[in-house]
Amino acid sequence: MLPRSGLKHTEVKGEKRNMRQITVNIKPTDKSLQPELQYKIDKKTKPVGSLGILEELALKMGLIQHSLVPAVERKGIIVFAADHGITAEGISAYPADVTPQMVLNFLNGGAAINVFCRTGNIEMAVVDIGVNHDFTADKNLIDKKIRKGTRNFAVEPAMTEEEVYGALQAGMDAFFVMHKKHNLQIIGLGEMGIGNTTSASAIIAAISGLSAENIVGHGTGLDKKGLEHKAAVIQKALEYHKPDANNGIDILRKIGGLEIAGMAGAALAAAENGVAVVFDGLISTSAALIAARLNPAVIDFAFAGHNSVEKGHKVALEILRLRPIVDFNLRLGEGTGAALAMHVIENACAFLREMSSFEDAGVSGKL
Amino acid sequence: MLPRSGLKHTEVKGEKRNMRQITVNIKPTDKSLQPELQYKIDKKTKPVGSLGILEELALKMGLIQHSLVPAVERKGIIVFAADHGITAEGISAYPADVTPQMVLNFLNGGAAINVFCRTGNIEMAVVDIGVNHDFTADKNLIDKKIRKGTRNFAVEPAMTEEEVYGALQAGMDAFFVMHKKHNLQIIGLGEMGIGNTTSASAIIAAISGLSAENIVGHGTGLDKKGLEHKAAVIQKALEYHKPDANNGIDILRKIGGLEIAGMAGAALAAAENGVAVVFDGLISTSAALIAARLNPAVIDFAFAGHNSVEKGHKVALEILRLRPIVDFNLRLGEGTGAALAMHVIENACAFLREMSSFEDAGVSGKL
Repeated sequence: MLPRSGLKHTEVKGEKRNMRQITVNIKPTDKSLQPELQYKIDKKTKPVGSLGILEELALKMGLIQHSLVPAVERKGIIVFAADHGITAEGISAYPADVTPQMVLNFLNGGAAINVFCRTGNIEMAVVDIGVNHDFTADKNLIDKKIRKGTRNFAVEPAMTEEEVYGALQAGMDAFFVMHKKHNLQIIGLGEMGIGNTTSASAIIAAISGLSAENIVGHGTGLDKKGLEHKAAVIQKALEYHKPDANNGIDILRKIGGLEIAGMAGAALAAAENGVAVVFDGLISTSAALIAARLNPAVIDFAFAGHNSVEKGHKVALEILRLRPIVDFNLRLGEGTGAALAMHVIENACAFLREMSSFEDAGVSGKL
Repeated sequence: MLPRSGLKHTEVKGEKRNMRQITVNIKPTDKSLQPELQYKIDKKTKPVGSLGILEELALKMGLIQHSLVPAVERKGIIVFAADHGITAEGISAYPADVTPQMVLNFLNGGAAINVFCRTGNIEMAVVDIGVNHDFTADKNLIDKKIRKGTRNFAVEPAMTEEEVYGALQAGMDAFFVMHKKHNLQIIGLGEMGIGNTTSASAIIAAISGLSAENIVGHGTGLDKKGLEHKAAVIQKALEYHKPDANNGIDILRKIGGLEIAGMAGAALAAAENGVAVVFDGLISTSAALIAARLNPAVIDFAFAGHNSVEKGHKVALEILRLRPIVDFNLRLGEGTGAALAMHVIENACAFLREMSSFEDAGVSGKL
């Protein structure tokens, strides 16, 4: 499934390893611990099942960390930023200049994701993987620029194959930069890129086989006419490129985004290192689909942070069989839903670690 | 609406004030700030409305604190514990001994609510307002015992009118103990009491006018036969007592619980002091209904923490016109849903305080 061409190397665990080695190295979590985890959850001082989805989250984290005492205390969010040639087709309600402007907003700590990371005690990094702007060096900006935005996939492939591999590798590298610094237990993947709901919707349409009009949503604020135009642009591009639904590299090359490839790479690297991954909304989850095409085992390490109002997001989550954790009618991206969901996963791990059992606490069971 | 009999006094703001004075003193929030709050929310660096329900939460907190920079940093949870004479009718899956056993579990820090409070940086207090057990003194236990559990409301009124007023006052006092210590900005109200879903369901049936079978849920683990029995016990009691749906005191006296009265009192005291209140599940929300019968303005200060799986909870929320914040299939009580929801309210206030505006950040608006 994974072509061998175009590979670069990444530094990790003291050895040079390339994107392909990392990807194939991901193994499904060891399910042998599941009965013991479930027993421990059921013996806590609460009616069986009464902590609802937190019980499922605790179980999954136990499997990811292969531990009866999983923890989510060292948390990170990476925001990948990139521009999109497809904006030339007039598919966004905002001008493309907003991408670099928002990157500066992230670096100055003024965006929603900055706020949620501060409140949630989450480390945050911003990665320029393809913004159409020359930033001055900033200690909070990881420079992994592949090129200044994708090409317009309405008229040509968005990237070359080399650029796709470069962006996947860049995403992995960005994860390793964060992981080395913070020894993360969980990473959320967010993005910024005017036009990227168009690329994400195209990816979800390609993989689901649904037509664009069944995928496309309001993005960050299109009206009905704008929506119809966006769906038409996507549908035409899909018919022109005919991306191979089973080939993540082919999909990225033809209709992808640099930040989407970056998030897919970061997810794969995290999974390979036993770090849980929280995806965010439509765009982030399109990266999850790509990552799962490269190695399906990545989903054993993955959580769907939130339930976006975008209908394509629901389609993607169904394919991935991931149930969103929070449902707040968010449609912002940046990793905001992932950041809010992390607090729930953190509490899930905490109850598994810290709650008394009926026996320990001397509490009577059911009649 | 509020009878004048049976009043005791509470110490606050250096003056002796009774439960009735505090209750009538609650005023609706001043809505004059609403346009300015909405303007500020809309000018943040995000598409209008894209932070979903967090925008509504930020607006409500702004009104509660009458501030463009509301904050939820000093947080508390009070867990009210009491026993219920109605357990003699065999309506619970757990023995009544579990109430005092769980109080000890709270005091030892081993229950779910202890864990969520630690993770969420929330102060927690436990109030014995009517447990059928003599506890030894404990610095973490607020002793406000009115009596050792309610009477069996299948055969007689659950409380005397004096006990009802005593329990409301005790709830207020417990709030003031916490507030004096921590200068709270928000308080969550939880409970523990074997049998209390029966009392709460009866209250919701009485106020909604629906029959018991449309209210009763699985509690902490009843089977179908147990459910039918529980609904029959409630329906018979409602027909026997005929509680006045508009009179919170009458409802509490006939079919109430001491912890439910305590939570209603705490909510009223919090609202009178401009402190936001987060209700939890079925039982906590039945206390919200009672508090709203005593002074409807309390709901201006109220949030519904979560969406319980109990169907009576949905009925209560509809009457109160409160939308639940989180939806995790919880059915534990203790304030667990309220504790998890507080993190969302905290983030909502944080974005309103800390995010840049389009103008400040130099970000372009919509095309």
